[in-house]
Amino acid sequence: MKTRIFTPGPTPLPEKVRLSQAKQIIHHRTKEFSSIFEDVCQSLKYVFQTKNDVLTFAASGTGAMEAVVANLFSPQDEVLVVRGGKFGERWENIAEAFGLKVTGIDIEWGRAPDPLQIREKLHSSKTIRAVLTQLVETSTGVRYDIESIGKVVSETSAVLVVDAISGLGAEPLLTDEWGVDVVVAGSQKGFMLPPGLCFVSLSEKARKLMDDATCPRYYWDFKKAQSALVKGQTAFTPAVSLICALRESLALIKEEGLDAVLERHRVFALAVRRAVSSLGLEIFAHPSSNAVTSILVPAGVEEKNLRKKLQENFGVMIAGGQGKLSGKIVRIAHLGWMDKLDIVGVIFALEMTLAHLGYDVEPATGVKVVQEVLMGKVAM
Amino acid sequence: MKTRIFTPGPTPLPEKVRLSQAKQIIHHRTKEFSSIFEDVCQSLKYVFQTKNDVLTFAASGTGAMEAVVANLFSPQDEVLVVRGGKFGERWENIAEAFGLKVTGIDIEWGRAPDPLQIREKLHSSKTIRAVLTQLVETSTGVRYDIESIGKVVSETSAVLVVDAISGLGAEPLLTDEWGVDVVVAGSQKGFMLPPGLCFVSLSEKARKLMDDATCPRYYWDFKKAQSALVKGQTAFTPAVSLICALRESLALIKEEGLDAVLERHRVFALAVRRAVSSLGLEIFAHPSSNAVTSILVPAGVEEKNLRKKLQENFGVMIAGGQGKLSGKIVRIAHLGWMDKLDIVGVIFALEMTLAHLGYDVEPATGVKVVQEVLMGKVAM
Repeated sequence: MKTRIFTPGPTPLPEKVRLSQAKQIIHHRTKEFSSIFEDVCQSLKYVFQTKNDVLTFAASGTGAMEAVVANLFSPQDEVLVVRGGKFGERWENIAEAFGLKVTGIDIEWGRAPDPLQIREKLHSSKTIRAVLTQLVETSTGVRYDIESIGKVVSETSAVLVVDAISGLGAEPLLTDEWGVDVVVAGSQKGFMLPPGLCFVSLSEKARKLMDDATCPRYYWDFKKAQSALVKGQTAFTPAVSLICALRESLALIKEEGLDAVLERHRVFALAVRRAVSSLGLEIFAHPSSNAVTSILVPAGVEEKNLRKKLQENFGVMIAGGQGKLSGKIVRIAHLGWMDKLDIVGVIFALEMTLAHLGYDVEPATGVKVVQEVLMGKVAM
Repeated sequence: MKTRIFTPGPTPLPEKVRLSQAKQIIHHRTKEFSSIFEDVCQSLKYVFQTKNDVLTFAASGTGAMEAVVANLFSPQDEVLVVRGGKFGERWENIAEAFGLKVTGIDIEWGRAPDPLQIREKLHSSKTIRAVLTQLVETSTGVRYDIESIGKVVSETSAVLVVDAISGLGAEPLLTDEWGVDVVVAGSQKGFMLPPGLCFVSLSEKARKLMDDATCPRYYWDFKKAQSALVKGQTAFTPAVSLICALRESLALIKEEGLDAVLERHRVFALAVRRAVSSLGLEIFAHPSSNAVTSILVPAGVEEKNLRKKLQENFGVMIAGGQGKLSGKIVRIAHLGWMDKLDIVGVIFALEMTLAHLGYDVEPATGVKVVQEVLMGKVAM
């Protein structure tokens, strides 16, 4: 059985990325490694759409979130967290672990925060040092309006910290232009790599916070990482094989062009949304992201069974719901190394599996819609 | 030019380890991954020689050192650090970053601590919560007598924390039997993997410290890691490809047998020491470890030149000195995936390079000694 992963991380690995990891290891304190790492650091700026340096750590994405909290804040600092899903809650949990004071904006899971509400909070509490939020809240599949939030936060002394772990490479994120101070990302999503690397970009405004921040850090120390980076190095032993693989995946992104990569994600997401809707299913997230589509499981179908049969009969792996959404939604990611036949394949398998489970499906309903979208016959 | 790495991390990757990373990614929240991870966790206990669980993190070794400090201690806690090289200093730096009070035992770089001196310190200051030290101080090449230190620390309420990043798999470490409470390791040394994974084992005595420890942690949280481990999972996204590769390298270690692996390291280290001495060079470390041999650069030879010519003419990469030892020593690692021809090769290249640089060498002096040691003609 061929396995096909449609989960919002990890995402499938392109052949060049896979094979690069089969090479013999190289030492990291060499010109050879520095040359690779410098190349990677340059390309990361392009994907992050920033003129600032992007720091790389050997860790998964949560590590980068913790690194931001440890480097920019002190115990008792107040931060505003958008609580719209599991990863918003993760910001809160990390901030609380480090003794910060968390003010929350609670939004219904499946919806995005209203930038005006953030504005109101920032103006009513002048002590808020940062807004911690997501580009895509992976657990719900919602895209947040970071451009508008950026405008709101830029008016204040607070910094805007965006977890773009699932969003980067799938959704536009004009880091500098939109006034996003900190962007966090991970390797196993739009970067088409195995998990094990995470990234942080920092604006001048964010860097200024480091001087007063007293939360303890050593491994995550941004100043150490920054000093090493200018010498083509990392502060501590880097995940060499993953960084070599990253060079390959960044080359693929540059070859296709970031705009084309984003457009591909937009069109595939549209195709999936339209196809799923044509089957009478309801999209859970509003606005639904271009990284992952969350779908309410229809009455009469058991979520676990749906995923199990997709896997058993088609080798297709999609994600279930997390936390309080467990059993209620399924999530189809169209993130990273995906092509048109992947998209039609997952819809084909979904249709057949729903029919198999007794849901009323006219054959090829969704498949036809995918084709129409990809032929440009649907308003984009 | 073939490249041959004789650095104390990263170490060469066996073919099975390399190729396993070229596989397509698998999702980590699956039975398939859990089965691999459970296998890995069992085998880690064997290599760590402990009945306790070994926790795995996506990070390099320094991350595991930080994790120990963050999980076991509170600001103002007193810890005793053996300052005998760069990695002893790293314990100190991390402890200080977290607000701990560090008492140091200063030893000459190139020498090992006297367990009685540690005993004295522990008895004169009853508030010392832990002794933080190394199995092998990579920067000097010295092996510390952890068995004796374990006896001394076991008499007290303090815990013994051993950074075995470079030592594990090269030196005997009877974790439970010797009363070692915490062992820290990394992937890119004796485990024959790329960097990017680190490991921590904890005794019951160490686990008890976690309840009162107030240093902040989230990504490193041992309780979260432990709860996930019993379900065949990690708390946060694991470095999947490295964990799959780890299964391969652990299979190699089990196939050879840990005792045989350690004996191989012992004999190779002996061969290198004897061969180097036969050339009139002086071993820097006492006692010299089985992971890496540090050698004083002889008068008239420039250290950078020696390493450069080894690389240029033989593709052989050895390490220089770190910190205050820069320019004074070179370090030849015989760590991980090494065989007899690797050992004779590095000595052959060293002899020829020294001769090339004007050092007086009778051809094959060292090579002959290697052969004698490997033939069992030298007292072992």
